[in-house]
Amino acid sequence: MESAILSLQIEFIKEVDKLKYILRKTKLLNSDRRENDAEHSWHLALMALVLAEHANFPLNMLRVIKMLLIHDIVEIDAGDTFIYDTQKSHDNTVEERAAAKRIFGLLPEEQAAEFIAVWEEFEAGQTNEAKFARAMDRLEPLLQNASNKGGTWAEFSVKYDKVYAKKQVIQQGSTQIWRYAEQLLNDSVEKGILKK
Amino acid sequence: MESAILSLQIEFIKEVDKLKYILRKTKLLNSDRRENDAEHSWHLALMALVLAEHANFPLNMLRVIKMLLIHDIVEIDAGDTFIYDTQKSHDNTVEERAAAKRIFGLLPEEQAAEFIAVWEEFEAGQTNEAKFARAMDRLEPLLQNASNKGGTWAEFSVKYDKVYAKKQVIQQGSTQIWRYAEQLLNDSVEKGILKK
Repeated sequence: MESAILSLQIEFIKEVDKLKYILRKTKLLNSDRRENDAEHSWHLALMALVLAEHANFPLNMLRVIKMLLIHDIVEIDAGDTFIYDTQKSHDNTVEERAAAKRIFGLLPEEQAAEFIAVWEEFEAGQTNEAKFARAMDRLEPLLQNASNKGGTWAEFSVKYDKVYAKKQVIQQGSTQIWRYAEQLLNDSVEKGILKK
Repeated sequence: MESAILSLQIEFIKEVDKLKYILRKTKLLNSDRRENDAEHSWHLALMALVLAEHANFPLNMLRVIKMLLIHDIVEIDAGDTFIYDTQKSHDNTVEERAAAKRIFGLLPEEQAAEFIAVWEEFEAGQTNEAKFARAMDRLEPLLQNASNKGGTWAEFSVKYDKVYAKKQVIQQGSTQIWRYAEQLLNDSVEKGILKK
């Protein structure tokens, strides 16, 4: 019985290896190399550990980390959606829900339900843990674009107002980090790498 | 004061982006593409979450995850050391200690000390959390090599006895997972992808 459970878990562990092939639009710091979802997820989880003290509220850190480690796994089936895409909504599409069901569904039943609940909590963005996790997800590409002469802002002609609106989510998780992010956006405008 | 702390943390977060360029010897599942340390660290952290129930003892999971997220950061300076290297010891070399001091030293003092302590705990492998984390670090390349016609075992002519000795560390973290690993090693010998 225990070994049957383990077998299912190993199949899931093998399946999610595919996340290493899913490329995001944003590039590594000072780089031309696009980031993949697995290394992105690693970076966010580590950022959460480092920045936890700036959260607006006490956090269950293990829950935050769980969310960040699994938040993009659905993209193995559904693909990466660019945050400034005007055609396709980013959050919780039909494809993403089906992907969650298929991929987390490889796990033993109880664990599958738990992982899907964690993913849905992240997507809904209502709990403190989800708010802080989502702040990390907004902060990383900001650091990347600011280091890459505007990165995807420049590449896809995304203007300040649109970026500002998306990045404001950071404030829900941490006022202190939001102040830093806002400053970085203003600096980017001054440098001419983000257009008003 | 809070913003000075945040600035140091952001510098650390930017610096560790370099982990995405450190390539391991092992390759992704069923693949020719070498794995980098950042995506490796992500995979191990997720594996620990999924497999926690098989640990030989109760675990502080947040501590396990912290270890796995940071365990290879020293390789930004010290480089990846192949586990079957006959010239160079894997664990805690002079270069790795210097790297820990420099990279974690970018963080605010108290946090730097905490991260170095977590890294040293992983390296020492004595606590329950370190034992389970190290089991994950041994299991992932086993899954990779078994899926890649022997992978680094074949590429560097590493024999069964040597692999078995290294993999036995898994047993200290989980008897159940070790049973699975032992079976996978035996299957690999039968398939001719691991030589006795």
